[in-house]
Amino acid sequence: MISVSDLGERGVIELIWSIMEKDGHLSGQVLPPSDDASAILLNDGSYLVLKADMFVKMTDAPRGMLPFQMGAKAVAMNVSDLAAKGARPSAFLFSLGLPRNYPQEDLRDLISGISSAAKGYGAQVLGGDVGEARDLIISGFAVGSARNLIKRSGASPGDLVAVTGHFGSTAAAYKILLEGLRAPRSLRRALCRSVYEPRAKPRLGVALAESGAITSSMDSSDGLAFTLNELSKSSRVSFRITNIPISREACEFASIHNISPEDLALYGGEEYELVVTVRRGGWEEAVRAAEGAGGELIRIGEVLPGSKVFLVRGAEEVEIPPKGWEHLK
Amino acid sequence: MISVSDLGERGVIELIWSIMEKDGHLSGQVLPPSDDASAILLNDGSYLVLKADMFVKMTDAPRGMLPFQMGAKAVAMNVSDLAAKGARPSAFLFSLGLPRNYPQEDLRDLISGISSAAKGYGAQVLGGDVGEARDLIISGFAVGSARNLIKRSGASPGDLVAVTGHFGSTAAAYKILLEGLRAPRSLRRALCRSVYEPRAKPRLGVALAESGAITSSMDSSDGLAFTLNELSKSSRVSFRITNIPISREACEFASIHNISPEDLALYGGEEYELVVTVRRGGWEEAVRAAEGAGGELIRIGEVLPGSKVFLVRGAEEVEIPPKGWEHLK
Repeated sequence: MISVSDLGERGVIELIWSIMEKDGHLSGQVLPPSDDASAILLNDGSYLVLKADMFVKMTDAPRGMLPFQMGAKAVAMNVSDLAAKGARPSAFLFSLGLPRNYPQEDLRDLISGISSAAKGYGAQVLGGDVGEARDLIISGFAVGSARNLIKRSGASPGDLVAVTGHFGSTAAAYKILLEGLRAPRSLRRALCRSVYEPRAKPRLGVALAESGAITSSMDSSDGLAFTLNELSKSSRVSFRITNIPISREACEFASIHNISPEDLALYGGEEYELVVTVRRGGWEEAVRAAEGAGGELIRIGEVLPGSKVFLVRGAEEVEIPPKGWEHLK
Repeated sequence: MISVSDLGERGVIELIWSIMEKDGHLSGQVLPPSDDASAILLNDGSYLVLKADMFVKMTDAPRGMLPFQMGAKAVAMNVSDLAAKGARPSAFLFSLGLPRNYPQEDLRDLISGISSAAKGYGAQVLGGDVGEARDLIISGFAVGSARNLIKRSGASPGDLVAVTGHFGSTAAAYKILLEGLRAPRSLRRALCRSVYEPRAKPRLGVALAESGAITSSMDSSDGLAFTLNELSKSSRVSFRITNIPISREACEFASIHNISPEDLALYGGEEYELVVTVRRGGWEEAVRAAEGAGGELIRIGEVLPGSKVFLVRGAEEVEIPPKGWEHLK
């Protein structure tokens, strides 16, 4: 008997959309199901952007994560996908699956985490449902609006590839939390904060989209390597990557353990940065927009014709494979 | 240590909204959090209506329910709350929590159930997320629009109380499935169908709302007695109930087991009918609207000043207490 663990997360997603396509659910959709979120064109020409993403404690909460942080992460996961589409979050709903013996005190913290994160992102919490479950589950739904909707497809040869931050801290944190690698106290703390308190960047996403300079966008929560591959595949282009921004903490951790900082940056995940392509002539504008929103935009490469993601390392070019985290595998 | 099972579902919901209120999430909300769904006023004067409701197999799937039926029920649960607000369903999103060993064949059926039900209600499936969980979970999110939004509050003395169907079949089915009571094969089948294949009534809900004759509305999924009490409480009025429409099958089952058919009808649940109040002068209009949508409207009582729900039984009047199913208790 074939079970869902044989299919893996991506196999299940494929199965879902093959059935939905057969039943006509895909016709006329603004964004394809493979994109970060879904969108509906409203009468006034703007887009309603919708995202459903589920936080399951068993798989999504690293060891040591506090209930407040879990609530906040459940919001960040959803808001980040809106951000990648250039949508301003306006509302958040959630369904909670609670084990019977879950402590009231933890529940209070968890709800405060949801409330506080939603407020911080400018989203009003509109609804919440509660049921019993063996795992702690926060199933989130984010609603936003976009004047300028940015798809995963849309990159053209000549565009620049850019990201909104430095990578590698979460991968290092997972090496500490899952594999038991050690780090000095303050470094350990800084690294763990990256997985305990991930922050989505909706202001930055909206500013970039509204600058008019962005041609495609995706959030990096599946890992930088995976995201670059998905984004290039969606646009049917190649990415030539010349620079991988690695966080100072990830570099320090890598040097202590003599591991590749580049690998930490490429093959991590749960980092809620945006990976975008920018019209070459719009670079200055995009940077200004990012800075105006309190963020940054780091150029990491360029778009070429083709269907690969490769990294220029000195004189050689190596392919970056689409490795990343997958549920159910 | 106090756990969520001490609080119960309604205690948890209260905790959620006390925190959300403190953080300002309730200010300016079109519908209070106690209503069936949430709403946002759009620029064109219509309402976007949103609902998140979670199906957990462990508590929401009666014994013998097929995966296809689970998928369809997860959609019905959400659509029914939209229907009660007079909203036409337009989109459906979901997050699936899947046990690793869940069979692919069952998954295919479950997804087909979601797809087919959404299509039947006129909602396009826009998104689906997948994660690993110990329980099978379908966390649904329905989006609809309403020209005429019907709240739970809004009933006035003089209005009529009405429902869109007959009650009691699901309570009888649970007596068969949970308590082992027996019934002749064809009766058993008909009763079980009521819990295996619940149907929401969005066309009816929209038609009633747009008739302009409805003053308040709520779906009956928490049980008729509980729903009548909630609806009357929301409007700060009394309901004087003179007639409880009981399904033929529930009557037959009750007579076999010598139990009260009225109790089956009042204290069941998972019945996706609408309980509404109607302006007395609008009764004919409301009935026409219901029939035009292929449904029916059954008058069961009237609205009086006060704060109780009571049943006229011959010469005496008995109070109907707000008993009903509650998760986590």
